[in-house]
Parts: sequence; structure tokens; C-alpha cells
Amino acid sequence: MTAVIGHRNPDTDAITSAIVYARYLSRTGREATPYRLGELNFETQYVLREAGLETPALLESLPAGSEVALVDHNESAQSLPGLETLKVVAVVDHHKLGDLTTAEPLYLRFEPVGCTGTILARLFIENNVHIEPLEARLMLSAILSDTLHFRSPTTTDVDREMVAFLAPIAGIADVKAYAMAMFAAKSDLGDTPAETLLKMDYKVFEFGGQPWGLGVVETTNPGYVLGRKAELLEAMRAEKAASGLAGVLLSVVDILEETNRTLVLSEDEAAVLRAAFGVEVSGDEADLGSRISRKKQIVPALEAYFA
Amino acid sequence: MTAVIGHRNPDTDAITSAIVYARYLSRTGREATPYRLGELNFETQYVLREAGLETPALLESLPAGSEVALVDHNESAQSLPGLETLKVVAVVDHHKLGDLTTAEPLYLRFEPVGCTGTILARLFIENNVHIEPLEARLMLSAILSDTLHFRSPTTTDVDREMVAFLAPIAGIADVKAYAMAMFAAKSDLGDTPAETLLKMDYKVFEFGGQPWGLGVVETTNPGYVLGRKAELLEAMRAEKAASGLAGVLLSVVDILEETNRTLVLSEDEAAVLRAAFGVEVSGDEADLGSRISRKKQIVPALEAYFA
Ligand SMILES: [Mn+2]
Ligand SMILES: [Mn+2]
Repeated sequence: MTAVIGHRNPDTDAITSAIVYARYLSRTGREATPYRLGELNFETQYVLREAGLETPALLESLPAGSEVALVDHNESAQSLPGLETLKVVAVVDHHKLGDLTTAEPLYLRFEPVGCTGTILARLFIENNVHIEPLEARLMLSAILSDTLHFRSPTTTDVDREMVAFLAPIAGIADVKAYAMAMFAAKSDLGDTPAETLLKMDYKVFEFGGQPWGLGVVETTNPGYVLGRKAELLEAMRAEKAASGLAGVLLSVVDILEETNRTLVLSEDEAAVLRAAFGVEVSGDEADLGSRISRKKQIVPALEAYFA
Repeated sequence: MTAVIGHRNPDTDAITSAIVYARYLSRTGREATPYRLGELNFETQYVLREAGLETPALLESLPAGSEVALVDHNESAQSLPGLETLKVVAVVDHHKLGDLTTAEPLYLRFEPVGCTGTILARLFIENNVHIEPLEARLMLSAILSDTLHFRSPTTTDVDREMVAFLAPIAGIADVKAYAMAMFAAKSDLGDTPAETLLKMDYKVFEFGGQPWGLGVVETTNPGYVLGRKAELLEAMRAEKAASGLAGVLLSVVDILEETNRTLVLSEDEAAVLRAAFGVEVSGDEADLGSRISRKKQIVPALEAYFA
């Protein structure tokens, strides 16, 4: 039995790709079960509810030597604790290659596209594996989520083609309406605690040998999030101290206007933002303009600055 | 322009996969040129001669930031010096994942099959790219070479299927006769210096944080190689000292009988062979039985011992 997992602080791609790839593996001769490494965000909850699917079980650890397949991530800091003791048999991902190494040959499939769901759809097609409506719906949802319905600069032609290919199989006639419903669900932040908002889409990266925490809140309603700035800064301060981070950033991304306003905790972060992005920082907010992709626009600039 | 390279001390798969993948990339929209990182062995010379192809140009370095595609390897120790300064845009390989990391998303295609040529053939097929007879011949040659005409335990059903698929395209009616001619060319060691025999198929691995050099001579005529044992041990001693290795092993593999007799330089190597393989070592030779695959049988046992 192979456990299929997406990254911690899962987004829609991490969860749906684990579900879809486990189904793909099971149908092509390797028994597999999808798991999640954390709580689902509201968008993902909406996607699974609309698909009539249960939430995958939470996985906290696996015995050494267990077989595992990774989707939508490959760095140990974003994966199951003790990953180095497990046998990674496959990775399907669209991120840069991090610290993963293996003792044996394995299946690796990385493509520089907008979403793991796009690569999974290609796998089904290439190997003539039948795509069920449920699977088409999950892959399509992931692509819409990761590309912000093609607004993100990470979007490629292949992502667009796959959505066009998958929509009729999924029985989704109005893709735009479905995307808007997903984004509305995501933006329904209600009385979500500030700690949860910070961690909703949050990853730790190493820059210049030091850990930085980068959170993103993608919303159709940035005013609501920015209205809770004091609470959020307090949650960032607590997280920075508790996890011994060199810095922590929280970007509030307006997915309709495609703007990024990033909360600035202290001069540590302000100095780096000024130097890495050439922006002015005054007070506790920085206007990062149209840099809405952490993977393509935020992380590379920070890496270039620290290198 | 992307430079496509196989590993140092190139074998037939490293050279032909660089040629074939460069052609694949050029036909699918990315201008690419194949290079070699070292001298060709006699088998590869035979393959290129029969194909009517020139030897690819030798590459010694590239300016920082140059685009490169790796085939048949992924570890920096086996690649171009300064790999960490280059932009790796694609890797096609069938080995374990080593120390490669990237700053950007990229194309990665690893499969646990017997040969990179097998994966390349799948790429052509999946993407409906026409396979020319020359390309079919090169991929088929690589598969026969890496799998020792399906004798190696690294062989998978996919490797066999691809040879059956490629042979008629290549216009090779008698695959067995062609394989025998390749192996005879490889075994034509003539007056090859001992240093060259040692380095013909040679890779440096890290075990327990220390470098080990592992050479393999695959031959249909092991008696000839073992008859030059004294010279070979001297070449191993010189290499160990010159490169500051913790140990050096040279396996003489009889590709017809599928046996492995490994030369033992000193008690450093003898102690490790006894513990890692549970074999008796007396004098300057160890009988490693039917362990004819460095990748699948030698390296994993050494890694397990040192871990
Ligand atoms: Mn993703
Ligand atoms: Mn190979």
C-alpha cells in the first residue's frame, strides 16, 4: 500500500492531486490511498463537497520504510515528518526541485506548468487510462485554483488546454461560474482566527541558510483581511518567535484585481522587501503590485536577493 | 541553445540519449545540441559508426547561467564541472535522485526502468513525435547496452517492449546478432592501457560521507581482463591516491555468463566487501556471484552497509 500525500497546509491542488493520483496508481497496478497533512481550506472543502467526496484521512507519521508518493511538493520541510526514513516511489510536481534524494530509482514527473492537476491529466491521457467525471472535476478544480482561473503568471497554454478538455468530462458547463463559486468559498473567511488565516496557505523556505515563513491569503475581499491587520501582525510575531524564523511575510492577494499587499512585521522584513523588490515600505504594509504568485514572483526574487 | 549532456565516462546510453534527446527537443521547439563529457568506449564507437554518425563534441565547461539538459544522470559528481552555476531545464534519467536542486520549476522525467533510451522512446510516442530510423537505432542500442540484452536485473518489461517496437523502425532484423556485435566491439580491449580499462565505466559515489570509485568492465572475455590484474591493481592504487578515495573497486563482469569477479586493492576494500555482501575475500579478488548491476546490486548494498 502506497500513501499518496500533498504538502502541509494543503491547498486544493495538494488535496485533489493526492486523491486523483491514488486513483490513477490503483487503476494502473499499485494499491494507493490518499491522505492529507493538515486542515482543508474553505475552497477545498467546497470542491470536495460539490464532488460528493469525503475528506481524506489525516496522516501524522508513517513507519520507517513505508512507501509514499508525493504530489504538488518535493521538499522535506513541506512534507511528512521523517520523510527521509520513507521510501519515495513517485513524485508528481510543478515546483522547483528541492532537497529530495532517494536510495533507489523512482518515478519522477515534474513539468513547469501551473498545476499538478495538469500533469496528472497528461498521465491519464498518455497511458490511455479512462478519466471518470469525478476525476476530471478534481483536476479541473485544482487547475482553476492554482492558476486563479488563468490569472496567475504561472499559467501555461497546457493548463488552459486541460481545463477545456476536462470540463465536458466533468459535466461543468460554465467554468467561469464554477471558478467564481470556488473563489467565493475561499474568501468566506468569517470568524477564522488570525493564526489560521496566516497558516491557510503557508510555507517555510530557506533563504541564505535561514528559515522564512511565507503566507498568502488569496481573496476576492482583501478589505476584510486588511481590516484585521493588527491581529494578523500579532499572529505573525508569535509564529516568528515560536518557530525561530528569520522573517515572516503575509501577502494579501486580490485574485480579481490581481494585486498583492504584503504585511510587514518589522525592519527585518522591510529591509529585505526594499532590496529584493525595489519597493517602498512605509509602516506595516508593502505594495508588491501585481506579484501574485509566491512560486514565480516572490520566492525567486527573495532567492536572487539572498544569493 | 540548450546543451544536452550525459554523464562523465560516458557509456552508450549517455551518448545516444544526449543525441536523441537533443533531436527531440529541437523538433518540439527548443533548440538543442548534444555533447559528450569524455572519450567514447569501443561499444559506443561501434554504435555511432554503424549509425553513420559523427562523435558529439567534447564539452569541458559552460558559462554560468547557460541552459543545460541532463540525460542518464543527475548527480553533480557525474556531470559537467560547475553544474550548480547552470540552469538545468530538463532531466531524463533512470537512476536514483541525487544532489540536484534547482531555483526554478523544470521538466523532470525519471522512471525505474533499465535505460534512459526506454524513457526517451516513451516521450516520442506519448507526444506523437515521429521516430526516425536513426533515432530508433540509437535508442535500441542504448537499451541493449544498459540491460546487457535483457540479462541485467535492471531490465523491465518496458525495456523489452521498446526494443520490440524500435527494431523494425531501425531496420534491425536480427536484434540478437546486433547485440552480440556491440558486445564484441566492447570486449575488443586490445592494448587499452590499464588506466583506461579502469575508467571505461567508472563513477564516484559518496558512502558514509567518503568518496568511493566504482569501475566496471563488462566483457565477453573476462579471462583477458583478469590476466592483466597486476596492471589494473596498480592503476587502482594510483587513482585511489591521486583522487583521495576511501576505496576503489573494479568489477570484471562476464556479460554472457553473468558473473562478477571484483578486484580487491587492500584490506580497506576487503573489509567492506565482506560486510556489505557477506562474501569471502581472499587475496586480490572477490567473487560477487551474479551481482552484475552496479546500480541495482552493488551501490544499494554498499549504501545499506554504510548507513
Ligand atoms: Mn500546485
Ligand atoms: Mn543508462
